[in-house]
Amino acid sequence: MADDYQMQQINGDQIGTGQKPLLELYVKASGIENRRIGACLFCQEFWMELYALYEIGVVRVEVKTVNINSEAFKKSFLGAQPPIMVENKNATYTDNREIEGRIFHLAKEFNVPLFEKDPVVEKRIESLYRNFKIFLRSKSEHDRERKGSSPTPMDSLPPQQKASYNKLVEQLSNIDQLLSERNSRYLLGQSMTEYDCELMPRLHHIRIVGQRLLGFDIPLNL
Amino acid sequence: MADDYQMQQINGDQIGTGQKPLLELYVKASGIENRRIGACLFCQEFWMELYALYEIGVVRVEVKTVNINSEAFKKSFLGAQPPIMVENKNATYTDNREIEGRIFHLAKEFNVPLFEKDPVVEKRIESLYRNFKIFLRSKSEHDRERKGSSPTPMDSLPPQQKASYNKLVEQLSNIDQLLSERNSRYLLGQSMTEYDCELMPRLHHIRIVGQRLLGFDIPLNL
Repeated sequence: MADDYQMQQINGDQIGTGQKPLLELYVKASGIENRRIGACLFCQEFWMELYALYEIGVVRVEVKTVNINSEAFKKSFLGAQPPIMVENKNATYTDNREIEGRIFHLAKEFNVPLFEKDPVVEKRIESLYRNFKIFLRSKSEHDRERKGSSPTPMDSLPPQQKASYNKLVEQLSNIDQLLSERNSRYLLGQSMTEYDCELMPRLHHIRIVGQRLLGFDIPLNL
Repeated sequence: MADDYQMQQINGDQIGTGQKPLLELYVKASGIENRRIGACLFCQEFWMELYALYEIGVVRVEVKTVNINSEAFKKSFLGAQPPIMVENKNATYTDNREIEGRIFHLAKEFNVPLFEKDPVVEKRIESLYRNFKIFLRSKSEHDRERKGSSPTPMDSLPPQQKASYNKLVEQLSNIDQLLSERNSRYLLGQSMTEYDCELMPRLHHIRIVGQRLLGFDIPLNL
């Protein structure tokens, strides 16, 4: 039903594992390789948030990739879909609001600044994925109508499609600019926050879907 | 792909519909009757919240029941699952956190006390469904091991199963008591809040699953 990835103890901390909460995250398996995490954005986001807690040694984490169509899986969680988080083999969280709420409280309990707020960053990354989906829909409809064998190059797009493309690239540039101004590894500084956990899987989706379906690449200078 | 339930204008308000946001909620169809809302708790919860906004005439709402296995549906939302909310045919919300966030802002904008807080109520209804699932799992395992043709009556349960049963019934009694003390239609008073929207679908699930699978009924006096 699931493959277990018990993460290795890499940070050599001395807290007894008996004390640390055990968080099991059930994620959608990749369609290509069923032991790897699949394309579910929320699974990837929560996995990164849990990793941030795991990395500094305050929780134990196990990621379980599941085939969402397997009857055994469906039965175990009464039909709920990944992401699903189970704490200490006991409390089950099946709603994204609940999962995030629980991670929020754990971060607070262990003084991890995972949910620190920053209105500038928030504004800058807001709607990125939505803008990408608008571009995706409009360009793929255009390509389909054109019936060409390859995606239309960006330079030859009609004004409406071109506008959605420009908007997306402009937003990507603005995010890049923010990172270069701040000269930091993550959006808020030296440690990862929920903004990074939200942004990174989405950027990866944009890159892959863009390359494969749209003839679009995140510009090299970004 | 979807059946539309355009709700009738029942409250005769005078605001032009052109001004009101149109919210389309895609919900999982019932397995028995595909034009009815299915057993997805989150779909039911958001449907109730939207109804609360619709009822007082501040938004337009359309509920669309969908077959989640249909290819057309999967394509329209790039693989996202219900509940999905679309605002003004334009902004799409596929994450429970986003959907709730948007409804929260709409309620605030229109001064609807849908998200009013009440720590007593919160405490009282907290974990009800979790406690039910613990009882469900423990009793159905017991029934299966017994291999009887009908569910074990509550009086004959072994201590562990009996304890999960007692805990559930006690919590249901406490909720009932709160409602009777407050002598109000809803948990917080005369108007519906998110607590009701959360609780009611769960109570309905408990009733149906309890009757059909467990030989359990919510006690008649509650």
